[in-house]
Amino acid sequence: MDGVVVEDVGLAVEAGMITEVSRPAPGALPQPATVSGITIPRFANCHSHAFHRALRGHTQTERGTFWTWREQMYATAAELTPDSYYALALDVYAEMVATGIGAVGEFHYLHHQPDGTPYDDPNEMGRALLAAADAAGIRIRLLDTCYLASGFGTAPEGVQRRFSDGDAERWAERVSAFDDDRVGAAIHSVRAVPRDQLGTVVDWARERERPLHVHLSEQVAENAACVAAYGMTPTQLLAEVGALGPLTTLVHATHLTPEDIALIGQARSFVCFCPTTERDLADGIGPSRELHDAGARLTLGSDSHAVIDHFEEMRAVELNERLRSQVRGHWSAAELLDAAGPTGHASLGFDDTGRIAVGQRADLAVVDLGSWRTRGTGASAETIVFSATAADVRLLP
Amino acid sequence: MDGVVVEDVGLAVEAGMITEVSRPAPGALPQPATVSGITIPRFANCHSHAFHRALRGHTQTERGTFWTWREQMYATAAELTPDSYYALALDVYAEMVATGIGAVGEFHYLHHQPDGTPYDDPNEMGRALLAAADAAGIRIRLLDTCYLASGFGTAPEGVQRRFSDGDAERWAERVSAFDDDRVGAAIHSVRAVPRDQLGTVVDWARERERPLHVHLSEQVAENAACVAAYGMTPTQLLAEVGALGPLTTLVHATHLTPEDIALIGQARSFVCFCPTTERDLADGIGPSRELHDAGARLTLGSDSHAVIDHFEEMRAVELNERLRSQVRGHWSAAELLDAAGPTGHASLGFDDTGRIAVGQRADLAVVDLGSWRTRGTGASAETIVFSATAADVRLLP
Repeated sequence: MDGVVVEDVGLAVEAGMITEVSRPAPGALPQPATVSGITIPRFANCHSHAFHRALRGHTQTERGTFWTWREQMYATAAELTPDSYYALALDVYAEMVATGIGAVGEFHYLHHQPDGTPYDDPNEMGRALLAAADAAGIRIRLLDTCYLASGFGTAPEGVQRRFSDGDAERWAERVSAFDDDRVGAAIHSVRAVPRDQLGTVVDWARERERPLHVHLSEQVAENAACVAAYGMTPTQLLAEVGALGPLTTLVHATHLTPEDIALIGQARSFVCFCPTTERDLADGIGPSRELHDAGARLTLGSDSHAVIDHFEEMRAVELNERLRSQVRGHWSAAELLDAAGPTGHASLGFDDTGRIAVGQRADLAVVDLGSWRTRGTGASAETIVFSATAADVRLLP
Repeated sequence: MDGVVVEDVGLAVEAGMITEVSRPAPGALPQPATVSGITIPRFANCHSHAFHRALRGHTQTERGTFWTWREQMYATAAELTPDSYYALALDVYAEMVATGIGAVGEFHYLHHQPDGTPYDDPNEMGRALLAAADAAGIRIRLLDTCYLASGFGTAPEGVQRRFSDGDAERWAERVSAFDDDRVGAAIHSVRAVPRDQLGTVVDWARERERPLHVHLSEQVAENAACVAAYGMTPTQLLAEVGALGPLTTLVHATHLTPEDIALIGQARSFVCFCPTTERDLADGIGPSRELHDAGARLTLGSDSHAVIDHFEEMRAVELNERLRSQVRGHWSAAELLDAAGPTGHASLGFDDTGRIAVGQRADLAVVDLGSWRTRGTGASAETIVFSATAADVRLLP
């Protein structure tokens, strides 16, 4: 079509797939099926920890850093059962659906019972998440996460015993037994998986052509510990073990060296920014544009769910750059829509959604142009990215 | 009462004023009049340029700075008539009312006809704003703004002719003839009012005990030009002419020296931060906490109305500090509610609103605790500041 936003478009849909995109003569569209507002493909939420939603509003009272916040998060993790995890995730995924999100990448590491013993079905917690996604009506990529160490050379402790499979081989055995092609892989971080075991996770994902996601350099302290342990940055370590590649997503990528940025760009990896979480946790502002210009592909996630609003995530990428540089216009609205939509879906391994085109899933939502926020702002990509909020999403009947 | 948020409160209201605040026995509140959610005093929006709302969604396509954005804003200003100004302001003020704002400080400088000739009533444009506020049901402090120069030693040009009264004496004559006690004073900036005329505006406001507002140091370039012209910072210049004081509000206060911060704090002036505009215009992050700790009193404004959402303004003060410092917990939710509420109202000269207490106006709104954003987050100040949005405001019947 002509531009980012096109007026008076006719869609034919069969079995959930778009079979025709047309420009009917004015008045020719059947009125009962006409939708007013801007119709958009539903977004991809590429980084979710569903259970963090329980912390919303409850973790804003203390002074501290990411690390003190993590203590509160662990207290929540310690209490979850398969049933309560299902109920919580169902609520979170329903909020995503209501706010225009059509697919979620769930970065899942809460695998075992509180003392570290596997459940009778060792994938029971993961299955609870898949069931919650089904019940909420959202597509899911379950990024089953390998988490083996509390820090560089430190065994899991406390609630972290719920996360650990013992070693990467046993992680791979468990995940292979999952037997659901919605399962992808994740390395929690270079902190949490020792250097000599990273390759096992990388190979598991590559052999199956499944997405591989990794938390990367969210915190300065993590970088320093990695350099102390291995004499290289987390990005250099991931490059060394072959973890960077076109089906890899690096989550956060906040504190990078120029060499890190070049390595990620050369690999054509995805970088998943989570701006509303990164500001909430005082992580800092990552080099989004430098990564893009080096060849990396931007995606977005709501991560801790302090906020679930992909409009906020999109505009925060640009607005954070403005705050830092005192210049406007780093990211266009069209680029940010691409990050929230088709690029995001691709990073989850979904290539059949994110665009309004023949052969794509008819997975659509509508942005209301008549709300207090959007009225008079024009039917444009800029209105979607800079004026609308989650509250302006209308679901199709 | 006991805390920031108190459960099961009974209010008696007569003629719009709160006459009793009580804690009835459980079940004793009459059901038809029970309100669920968190009842809050409506906010004060201390810095508004109503006509900038027309730019929302339309100024996000270009690379540039505050100064290139200003060209688009001037193009809008050039076209307004009293009638269209009224219609636009009515819409903006209605949006404020719908989102929980009860009072607005309108920083008004669009005084004259396009060629600079006064209207038959030289206050016709200001009266249009007062009428719009009345129609929308919002309290207004019309900050009638003195604007005499395009820059240091430069005459007004183009649309700026609409802003200028020629000199400060004629500004004072016009404003004195306004004859409406809702009118306060503003100095557009130290750029726009020459040094030897600042005192006239200061005196006008002080004699009448009316609020005085000033744009201060939003841009680094403005500071540099002031130092070049006068050998001192804008804050030093305002201090020299006696413009700092307890009824003065300094708007933005983004780029300050430690001495500037000390001067503002010693004067107990208000500082009005406009975070959603300051990020939109790439102004930067001002030293909110340092100003507070020096004695200044924080207020909030939506300024250009790229966003009208005082929940966003509140949390952005804290979240911007987190982005800059990589530490959490600079501002408590209670402090931010105070900035958005009673402190803000005081900066507009309104001391009878902003608190739920006997003798205060019953100017209240309700934050819905059952929305996707707020459910499960707790009836707390933190929920209001960090979880709710403008879309969660419910007006009282």
